[in-house]
This record gives sequence, C-alpha cells and structure tokens, in this order.
Amino acid sequence: MIQGLYLEDLTVGQSAEAVHVVQDADIVGFAEVSGDNNPLHLDEAYAATTPFRGRIAHGMLAGAYISALLAGKLPGPGSIYVSQKLNFKRPIRIGDEVTVRATVTAIDERQAHVTLATACLVKGKVAVDGEAVVNAPRRARAERARAGAA
Amino acid sequence: MIQGLYLEDLTVGQSAEAVHVVQDADIVGFAEVSGDNNPLHLDEAYAATTPFRGRIAHGMLAGAYISALLAGKLPGPGSIYVSQKLNFKRPIRIGDEVTVRATVTAIDERQAHVTLATACLVKGKVAVDGEAVVNAPRRARAERARAGAA
Repeated sequence: MIQGLYLEDLTVGQSAEAVHVVQDADIVGFAEVSGDNNPLHLDEAYAATTPFRGRIAHGMLAGAYISALLAGKLPGPGSIYVSQKLNFKRPIRIGDEVTVRATVTAIDERQAHVTLATACLVKGKVAVDGEAVVNAPRRARAERARAGAA
Repeated sequence: MIQGLYLEDLTVGQSAEAVHVVQDADIVGFAEVSGDNNPLHLDEAYAATTPFRGRIAHGMLAGAYISALLAGKLPGPGSIYVSQKLNFKRPIRIGDEVTVRATVTAIDERQAHVTLATACLVKGKVAVDGEAVVNAPRRARAERARAGAA
C-alpha cells in the first residue's frame, strides 16, 4: 500500500504547503464536475456586472485544494477524512497563486484523530480558512496487517 | 443579474434536492482539478487492496455537489457562501446515485445569514452531512440597485 505518515509520525505544529495557480481550465473543470455552471464563475461579461466585478473561482475549489494537501502530504495516503470546516473570506480569481497550508493543532491518540488548521492564502491574505479532522493510521496496526498478508 | 431566492423568500424548513450518479469521469475530473491523484480514487487494482476494497470518490466531491445545490437552487444565484462544515461518514463509489439535500434550519435577518443542514445520501444512508451558512441578498436592496442602474 502507498503510505503517508503514521499517527506516531505526527506532532502538533507540523505543517505542509502546496501552491496552485488558478487557471481558467480549473474553474471550467470544477463547473463540469460539480454541475455548478453559474456565470459568475464562467462568463466574464456577466461576472463584471456583479459585486465581484469579474469571474471568481467556486469557493469549494479551495476545499478541493485543502483535501488534496491532506490526502497527499499531511498525513498523506492511508489517512481517512473525518470532517472539514471551511470559512470563505475572500474570492479567488483566475491567475491567483493560492498557497494551501495545513498545520497540526491537536492529536487524539485514543481515537487516532488529528486536527489541522487549514487555509488558502492569496498574496498573504486568507481567502479560506477552517479546520480538518483526519484519522491517521497507526504504525503497529499497519505492520501487523502487512505481516498477516505476507 | 441572474437571481435566485431573496432572504425574504426563505423560511425555516424549506429544502432543495439534486441527484448525481457518480461517473468515472467525475472522479478523474475531480483528481485533475484538485491535484489529488491518490490511486485509491483512480486505480481499481490498487484500491481493491485497501480497507475500502475498491475505488471511492474524493470526499470533497460531495462538497462540490452541496456547493452546487446552494449556488444553483437554495438560495441560488446571488447568494454568497460564508461557511461549510462537512462530516464524511461513508464512502461514495462509481455508479452510486447521490441525493444531495439542503434544508433551511435558521435565518438571521439582521446579518442576512441563512443556515442550512446539508447532506449527501446513497441508498438512504448518509454519506456526508454537515451545515452551510450563506448570505442571501435582500430584495429591497437589489431593487434599489436596479433602480440606480436604470
């Protein structure tokens, strides 16, 4: 199995980052996958007439970036998503460089639950923040499972 | 402007639904947009070796479906996403018919904030639930803006 970090590898304060530059194709792709074809996201002429004064990304694209960071890096493959809170603070636009950050804030050893502060930043300002809880695999259990499978 | 429901149109208990049948292309598209190419989502042979015993959708795909329901129907265009909590309870698989539901649970007239219980169900069981807060436009303010623009 492809394996990220185990519960035993995690400490409070540990963090991971990823950077995405939002492309037109990302917004079009998110519209297709979600079914949200609101012209605020897709039609510049229309979006220019709204209070946003131009196209913005779907807010949940930030959720997709955060989930990818957790699933890919911290804790990475083998972890299971338990919950995610997202607070949408500022719009994200085409061309924005989005820094996605996750920082471990608490570890519940008994439940193997890890809490992380999660955020998407654009030019140093918070576009989206919130909190994730993931279940991280225990090393001893994984090693027993591998021994049993061998 | 394309306009959904106004704050004044909303009542506690009001609800909306959408149905998505998850296709392979949706999961591949979500992987491309999010950057989460974990083989648990993309590679059936690998996924069969995991505790999920087969490919599952990215959990945040359910978030995308919920955001699309809010943006498209309740309250619809013109509303602004404030926050979303997602609790991931059960995996969603290719071929699953996902019923996405949002129900108004509270209305804060002063802040124009609407709270909705949000859920994705598969075969009557909750795959994902949680709570959304959106800002709904006020009819009077929209009419003044239109009169000002005329």
